[in-house]
Amino acid sequence: MHPTALARSLRLIVITDIDLARPRAVIDVVRAAVEAGAPAVQLRDKLASPAELFEAGRAMLPIIRGSGALLFVNDRMDVALALGADGVHLGPDDLPVSAVRGAVPTGFLIGSSTDRPDVARRLVTDGADYVGCGAVYGTATKADAGASIGLAGLRRVVDTVDAPVVGIGGITVRRSAEVAMTGAAGIAVVAAVMRAPDVAKVVRQLLAPWAET
Amino acid sequence: MHPTALARSLRLIVITDIDLARPRAVIDVVRAAVEAGAPAVQLRDKLASPAELFEAGRAMLPIIRGSGALLFVNDRMDVALALGADGVHLGPDDLPVSAVRGAVPTGFLIGSSTDRPDVARRLVTDGADYVGCGAVYGTATKADAGASIGLAGLRRVVDTVDAPVVGIGGITVRRSAEVAMTGAAGIAVVAAVMRAPDVAKVVRQLLAPWAET
Repeated sequence: MHPTALARSLRLIVITDIDLARPRAVIDVVRAAVEAGAPAVQLRDKLASPAELFEAGRAMLPIIRGSGALLFVNDRMDVALALGADGVHLGPDDLPVSAVRGAVPTGFLIGSSTDRPDVARRLVTDGADYVGCGAVYGTATKADAGASIGLAGLRRVVDTVDAPVVGIGGITVRRSAEVAMTGAAGIAVVAAVMRAPDVAKVVRQLLAPWAET
Repeated sequence: MHPTALARSLRLIVITDIDLARPRAVIDVVRAAVEAGAPAVQLRDKLASPAELFEAGRAMLPIIRGSGALLFVNDRMDVALALGADGVHLGPDDLPVSAVRGAVPTGFLIGSSTDRPDVARRLVTDGADYVGCGAVYGTATKADAGASIGLAGLRRVVDTVDAPVVGIGGITVRRSAEVAMTGAAGIAVVAAVMRAPDVAKVVRQLLAPWAET
């Protein structure tokens, strides 16, 4: 994927959450989000079996593809490959980036998370296409995300690596513009979209500060 | 892999279990098993993180390769691919066999479990290289294995599919010979080897009834 196209796709990653989407089905929230222009979705459900995660992905993939968005799968490269998704997002307890890079086809995208500049540099050297960085703000949706790093912490990672950096953690419509000022490529959100009464409106508002490079 | 070579490798699959191996380290039990002729190992640890499972596999892979044995990873095709292992063993809650088959390189081995002849036939059609079938006897090591199917149940699956069938569940040195009489390609064991005071002796005894085809 061309760097410009990748950066454009990383302006907003909508991460799924079954509980926060209620009473709506996640797939309906995803549909509204990508139709409103969300350029990437990350399928995340840490409680689902691999078979269930695969089925959820299979159901939403045509909708995501139809809008031109990317699909990432959280944690599981196997589910991502089986779906024919665009990539995987790896956390610190997941497979090492270098091992995944060596096992996947050319063009398969790998994202990985850290809030540390030195780790970010290593992840990119190991083969990560982008770095998820946070929590930028406090977050209610990820208990293990650690202390928030603030805009300054995000900027430190942005300034350290050449690869796109995506801010995550507590990012709302009101905060999207100040995150864009850090030089990050984009934002990843869970609650802001999953809980939004008007998904399309929130997606457009979240995207507004991010130039279509 | 040539069918004859595969069948030879499936005579005995040693499945790992950290708890049953205590006070020994699993890797030491695996070493003793493959040095005694165990032709296949399945890395299983449902409590490990992907990173931990990968590290465990990376440590034992040279030992397994050195003896000419195969390494399968339980459940996770991503860990298997990242390790460069020989294959994956999929259960009913894992990714569908057909989806995994479409995502892995040629020659990557897929095993899958069922005790039903009709399901076994479908798994092989979908791309499974072998079928794990059981519990042949009652088993203490897998709470969700369901009722035992006996030698007659195993034979029904063996007679239904052309692919190799591996009996699993409560198989001991004393029972290995009667399982071999069903026409199964081999056996998979957890406790029999992991708990064995003399691993090498038990491996040789388990293998004895299985001809080197």
